[in-house]
Formats: sequence, structure tokens, C-alpha cells
Amino acid sequence: MKMNAYVAGVGMTTFGRMMDRGMKSTGGEAIETAIADAGLQKSDIQAAWMSNAAAGVLTGQECIRGQVVLRGIGMGGLPVVNVENACASASTAFNQACAMVTAGAYDVVLACGVEKMYLEDKAKVFGAFMGAVDVEQLKSILDGLQKSAAASGATEASKSAGKNRSMFMDIYAAAARGHMERYGTTIEHFAMVSAKNAYHGSLNPRAQFRDSLTVEEVLASPMIAEPLTRPMCSPIGDGAAAVVIVSERKMRELGLTRPVRVAASVLRSGWDHGPAAEGVAEVCSREAFEQAGIGPGDLSLVELHDASAPAEIMGYESIGLCAKGEGGPLVASGATRLGGRVPVSTSGGLLRKGHPIGATGIAQIVEITEQIQGRSGARQVAGAKAGLSHNGGGSIGTDAAAQCVSILTAA
Amino acid sequence: MKMNAYVAGVGMTTFGRMMDRGMKSTGGEAIETAIADAGLQKSDIQAAWMSNAAAGVLTGQECIRGQVVLRGIGMGGLPVVNVENACASASTAFNQACAMVTAGAYDVVLACGVEKMYLEDKAKVFGAFMGAVDVEQLKSILDGLQKSAAASGATEASKSAGKNRSMFMDIYAAAARGHMERYGTTIEHFAMVSAKNAYHGSLNPRAQFRDSLTVEEVLASPMIAEPLTRPMCSPIGDGAAAVVIVSERKMRELGLTRPVRVAASVLRSGWDHGPAAEGVAEVCSREAFEQAGIGPGDLSLVELHDASAPAEIMGYESIGLCAKGEGGPLVASGATRLGGRVPVSTSGGLLRKGHPIGATGIAQIVEITEQIQGRSGARQVAGAKAGLSHNGGGSIGTDAAAQCVSILTAA
Repeated sequence: MKMNAYVAGVGMTTFGRMMDRGMKSTGGEAIETAIADAGLQKSDIQAAWMSNAAAGVLTGQECIRGQVVLRGIGMGGLPVVNVENACASASTAFNQACAMVTAGAYDVVLACGVEKMYLEDKAKVFGAFMGAVDVEQLKSILDGLQKSAAASGATEASKSAGKNRSMFMDIYAAAARGHMERYGTTIEHFAMVSAKNAYHGSLNPRAQFRDSLTVEEVLASPMIAEPLTRPMCSPIGDGAAAVVIVSERKMRELGLTRPVRVAASVLRSGWDHGPAAEGVAEVCSREAFEQAGIGPGDLSLVELHDASAPAEIMGYESIGLCAKGEGGPLVASGATRLGGRVPVSTSGGLLRKGHPIGATGIAQIVEITEQIQGRSGARQVAGAKAGLSHNGGGSIGTDAAAQCVSILTAA
Repeated sequence: MKMNAYVAGVGMTTFGRMMDRGMKSTGGEAIETAIADAGLQKSDIQAAWMSNAAAGVLTGQECIRGQVVLRGIGMGGLPVVNVENACASASTAFNQACAMVTAGAYDVVLACGVEKMYLEDKAKVFGAFMGAVDVEQLKSILDGLQKSAAASGATEASKSAGKNRSMFMDIYAAAARGHMERYGTTIEHFAMVSAKNAYHGSLNPRAQFRDSLTVEEVLASPMIAEPLTRPMCSPIGDGAAAVVIVSERKMRELGLTRPVRVAASVLRSGWDHGPAAEGVAEVCSREAFEQAGIGPGDLSLVELHDASAPAEIMGYESIGLCAKGEGGPLVASGATRLGGRVPVSTSGGLLRKGHPIGATGIAQIVEITEQIQGRSGARQVAGAKAGLSHNGGGSIGTDAAAQCVSILTAA
């Protein structure tokens, strides 16, 4: 559906390792920040879409995750919908919230994503990722990844799919090898993505990692799943992000000085298709540009789902920043670095800002909103007018299980 | 929001213990049945809201549950939103699907609920219910339930809250004791609910339990959590239910001969309040009747959330079939039995049709739809014109964490 909704307020916690904070703590902080940012009260919120991907497996909070977080800050009574779409959970919550406001069902709603991943038991955390594919096919998926790694001549260290790392890094590694073979993309290109996002993250006070990294440092880091070294893989993390969405009527009533318009938000699930076919990210992006009435050339900035460095390069191509196969040269050109033609993942991205799964899609919206409002400090994109968020999750067949592409513009 | 949507097709599996069937099998069957019932093709479905409550803990399918089920029957590409609200998960999916159609976002959508609960490891199943309260407060909740049971003089067998049964049966038992003390409700009243729903279930080919039960047999059954005997507690179960929702425009285009209108659907979460205050079920019911423009006296039938027998009696009062405290006498009067003034849980209810958690709310919609369409066979309510579904889930503070009340009418 064609969206007509406005971002009235945003909030997020610093992402990172917070052994002393649970979902109620981080979720509550993000929500209170977003509501205050909108100049509203908790009682103004008419409905909430709450996103989390893995609390059932990780903390035992299998159900009513949103109600638990909201009750922690004294909010109850309102409609609460707990939504999940793996790593695209938060953008799904955002999409649904915007759709309901567009529809006229509500004037003021909340979308919040929250995840608690750092536990004493790391095996449990990595195990949770296995739940983002068809678990009945898990064994054959793992076997396939291992065979692909072995056939490519990958080092011994990277052949045990899903061991001591998210299985998704093996999925990304296989895709990266395919991109290298097909298009001549190099491991240096992937390292450039990590170094660029480390630079962006160094400018973001809420990023999980603030240290800079050179291309050489990225290449010299420990191998996780060939060709991915550690800084080419997003970390696990704790944190929350929230956004208050309002109708056009409410936006005018509030007299927002720097309103940001949700010009498009397209959610779709993936399907089985060959590598040459258009995938779910391509379809969502195309439809989002149609909805917004702009093209890739009109974007001031992009927050990409760089769960791994090659995913950012493939993302460039999916959303149309460059042609298929040209993602490597694009990052090499500097176009996607702050100061370049279209800065990508100015927040530091999933690689450096961090990736608390169920919070990520809304953290992207927070970054784009603040950029358009001109309050991004040292990493401000001058004159930012339009930004795109690209958030994918899970794996189904040969594609992401869920993909959401949203476009925000200066109202 | 005021709903304007239509049920074009329904489908559900038999509920029960199906050790050889997973969510893909039951979910796929329910969806294919519903789409065929609507006279549509899979490719006609524009979006899907998929409900499940506990697959993460129970089967490891923590994420993308809906996409996995849909891919199993060759459906992909469409927007899929996985929603969760504990035992009210399916009504939440239904509510969201109806809202989006009402809003004009789509003409043809799917809502499906599916749950797989029978596993070799029963402790795991009962443990999953612990995830439907605030898990950070689990210990104090269990302590409180145990103290309440001990103080009431409950038998030893019923004092270990959450052991070898769902913790929710202890929550219901405590509420039942409160109702007995406050209003003079008796254990016989609860047994009458179970016997009535057993009679209804005996007439439903898709019910988990088809055997009849007398009040005496219910009373003589093993004590689970005083005063609840086994037939006063809903069983665990496997199964799925699905519904195709269409817009008014599409309803006319399809030329449906027996269209059923979604006249209201109200979703809210609970909050902390005293026993005398209006709770979330009361608020949802009041708002649903306002939306539908009818009152409790206009209902032909009701599907109540009888997760336990006392919950049905309290539900009568919440939705206004009788005054507070009059639920016991109401069931004793026979008014809620087939042939009575307003038959309740003609399907057999959660107690006898079964309660595969994430499927229940949509199974209620299936029952009401078929009743209004006059195709309920031996349990048909003559001239059924309007039905109400009441689906609650989880526990937050002193209330259900989520509640959804929907009203369907002959279009």
C-alpha cells in the first residue's frame, strides 16, 4: 500500500554488550526516548507493534514480549502486536505501524524493536540463528554449506558451518564466493566495506564498536568463514530502538518543526529462484521507489542490511545504486563513504553500530530520521533529504525469508 | 478501528495428538482448505498474517514460522507478518488481516494459526507456558500461586504450581477460587461447563475429544489444580486453522452466496488493576458491540476462551451474557447449551475441540463462520445470524496480556 505517515520521534539505546540489562531495560529506554522526542506522553500512544526475533530461545520469554517491555514503563491497555521476521523483524513492525496510520486506524502509534543476545552461554546464542531457516531442513542446509566451503578450498577453520558462529555467516560466505566467481569481486572489496563502516561507526556515539579499521587490518583479522574475516561479520548485541509514527493530521497538530515523511515501505517474503532471477530485495526496492516517486539517484543516504560485508555489496546492486556485479567497484570508488555521492550505513551499519537482531530495522529508521533532521553530529550528511532502509531476515529457499525496504523523505 | 471485511473461506485440521505431523503439514492443509473454500487460488492471496505461540521453544523454529509453512505449499513472495500474542495469537493475526483489508491495503488476505505441541518431552511443553508471563518475575509468580493454593486448603496434588501441567491452570485455579468465594460459584458449575462442551465436542468431527461426559464424571476425574479436575482444563494439541478475508468489493466480485461480515474486531493488552475494575475482556467486548452496533442479546452463538471451565463462566460475565457473579447460574440454566438462548462454544471449545495455542483464535472464527453459513451439521444453531469470538492470551499483572473480541454477522 502507498504510505502516508510521519516519524514524530525516535529513540534508541547504545548497542553493545550489556550483561546487566534485559529487554525491559533497553526497550523501555528506547520507547521513553522516542515518545519524549515526539513531545508526547505515553498515554498518547494508541497502539504498538513490538519486534523481537529470539527471546523465546535466548531468555525464555517465548510470548507477550512487547507487553512485558511496555508494562515495565507503565504502559498497558493499548493494542500490542508482537511481530517477528528474523533480522527483518523491526522493519516489519515499522511497516505495520505505518500502514495502520496510513489507513486512518490510528493517529499516534509506536514501533519498537528490542533484542537481548549477550548471555553467558554463547553456544545458545549461535544456536538461535538455526531457527531462522526451515528447521526441518537444517541438516541438509548445514551439509550444503559445508560442502560449498570445502569445494571452494576454504580453510579448515571455516568448514564447520554454524560452529562457534552464526550459521548465517556461512550462508553469506557462500554467497560472497559466488559473487567473487561471477563478477570478479575481491576480498579487498569486502574489506573496504568493513573499513568504511568502521569509520562511520567511529563517529556514532551509540555504535557498538567505535574503533577505526584499515583495509589491511580487516584483511589481517581472524578468518570466520572464508572469505569473511571477523570485521566482515556483524556482531551479536543487546539494544533497542523505537519510533513514534503519526498521521498527517497529527503531524500538523503537533507542529513538528522537522517532520520526516514515510514515503514508502514495502514488505515481502522470499521464494525459491535461481541466482539470475530478480530477488525479494530487488522487488521491494523497485516497488518502494515507485511508491515514493523517486529513484536511487535521489537518495541522500542509505542504511543497508550489512549483516556481513558482502551483503552490503550485494545490497548496493539490489537497490539499484549500481548495476549487478558493480558493487565492488562502487565501494572502491568511495561513493558510499561519508562525503561520497551516496553514503551507505552512516550509522556504522550492522557491522559496527551493531545488530541486536529484532532492533536493527528500526535503528536504521532512527539513523535516517536524524540525518534528514540534521542532527547526526560528526557523521551528518550535508543537506540530507531522502534515505532508504534495507532490512532482510532469515533464509528461505534461495532468498531472504523477509525483506522490507522503506524510504523516508524530508516532509 | 471500525472493521469492514468479509470472510470468504475457512479451513482447519482436526485438532489432536498428531505425532507424525508438523506445522508445515497442518498449516498447509488449513490454508489450502480455506483458499479452496473461498473459490480462490494461492496466487490470489496478497498478504498473510501467520500466528504461532511457541514453536521457538517447542520445535526450534524460533523465526520465520509463517514463511516456512507457506513455502511448504509453494507460496512465497507475498508480505508475511508473523504475529504472537500467546493464546490470543491467532485472533491477533485475524484482527490485523481484517484491519488491513478494511483500510483498503489489500483485497484478499490470509490469516492462519498453527501450533505443534505434542512432543515426546512433555516437560518441555509445559515449560513453554512459563514464557507467557514476565519471565523475570516467574519465581515470584509461581511462589504466589503456590501460597494461594496452600492457603485455600487445596490438596497436596495441586500445590506445586506449574509442575506436570501448564502454570496457567494454577492461575485459573486461583481465579476460580476467588470467583467461588466472591459469588458462591460452585465446582458443580465448572463441571457443567465441561459436560456441556463435551456434548458440543461430541458433535464436532474436528474436535480433539469426541466422548461425552456427565457432570458426575467431570467431578470424579483426577484433580489437576484445585478446584480444577482434568476435564476442566484444556488439553495441549496439534493443529491449524486458516481464514481468507476479502474486501467488500472482492466479496461482491466473487459472488459469495453466504458471505459473513466481520462486524467488529477489537484487540487490546491487559494492565494491572484490582479485581473490581473493568478488565481487558470487558473493554474489548464493550467496544466490539459498539463497532458492530448490536448487543449481547443479539448473539446467536459465542466461542469463548474456555482454556479452563471457570474461564468460560468468567467469560460469560466479561462479554455481558449475564451480570457479574451470575455465570454459574447461567450455565446451570442451560442457556449456553446447544438449543439454549445463546449456545457457547458449540465447537466443543478449547476444552474439547482442543487448544493448539496459536491456532485457537482462528478456529473460533471458523466455527462461527460455518454456523452463520448453516453448515455445522449436528451442532448447527438454527438461524445463526451473529457470533462473537473471545480469545485471550498470556498474563500480565492481574489481567490477560492480550485479548481480542470479534463479532461476525450474516452479511
